[in-house]
Amino acid sequence: MAELKLPALDPGTVSEVRGSGYPEPFKTRMGDRVKRRLGDACGLTRFGVNLVTLGPGGRSALRHWHTLEDEFIYVLEGEVMLVTDAGEQTLAAGLCAGYPAGKRDGHHLVNRTGAVAVYLEIGNRIDGDNAFYPDDDLMWADDGAGAYGAHKDGRRYG
Amino acid sequence: MAELKLPALDPGTVSEVRGSGYPEPFKTRMGDRVKRRLGDACGLTRFGVNLVTLGPGGRSALRHWHTLEDEFIYVLEGEVMLVTDAGEQTLAAGLCAGYPAGKRDGHHLVNRTGAVAVYLEIGNRIDGDNAFYPDDDLMWADDGAGAYGAHKDGRRYG
Repeated sequence: MAELKLPALDPGTVSEVRGSGYPEPFKTRMGDRVKRRLGDACGLTRFGVNLVTLGPGGRSALRHWHTLEDEFIYVLEGEVMLVTDAGEQTLAAGLCAGYPAGKRDGHHLVNRTGAVAVYLEIGNRIDGDNAFYPDDDLMWADDGAGAYGAHKDGRRYG
Repeated sequence: MAELKLPALDPGTVSEVRGSGYPEPFKTRMGDRVKRRLGDACGLTRFGVNLVTLGPGGRSALRHWHTLEDEFIYVLEGEVMLVTDAGEQTLAAGLCAGYPAGKRDGHHLVNRTGAVAVYLEIGNRIDGDNAFYPDDDLMWADDGAGAYGAHKDGRRYG
């Protein structure tokens, strides 16, 4: 196959990003999670599109909801468990989920299978967005010098 | 499989939309094109996510570019031809393309195969967006009562 030129893109040529912006002990809990930032690779700025691979035990994020960001996921391969206030639902390849901004229903995906799961995640980018974590002792605080992870009583992590 | 509850969604349960907002003779040129509005079905408002099925000869749109809308497509099944100023590039399942807002490079997808092609298309929603069509005698005009399709010399279609 000829090498693609932008605006076309082969996701296999996009570098893998591991790790997360959470403070410990939350960061480690994400497990085997790899993202390829496809939207960024195409020069998009209004929304992000990531191709995410979750190994067995991996998770998309802490269960969370956003104030100003719509999010959407579409499963491409394998199977993930979607956890929300509605309970747990298995999403196989070809199924999807969408989380409207401001809806106070924490969500995340967990790979409870023994095989890799792959999905696309999309979210709009907008200043002033915040995320909340109903199950975990984490919130984002901002002292004017930048956002940081804090306990829910206000003490800074790390 | 148990029926999914929002925020989870089975695209197969989302109604099919045919046709386009173009005036004739452009509307008919889209051929066999069916969209399922997945983002809308999940209550998203900041961006749209459509699952699009193109039959043989079908096309995504007239070749166009947007002033304020980022767009992204990811091919799920079959094969489409991406046409841009860079020429023609074949995109098979697992490949993608992204079009930054304001980049004056008209793009569209054409299904030149004998089989169905399926892809996801994503675009942010923003007031004041406009689209331009380098290959066709079509522009959008607005007289204050709403936008309408016009010839490039200003005469209204239809």
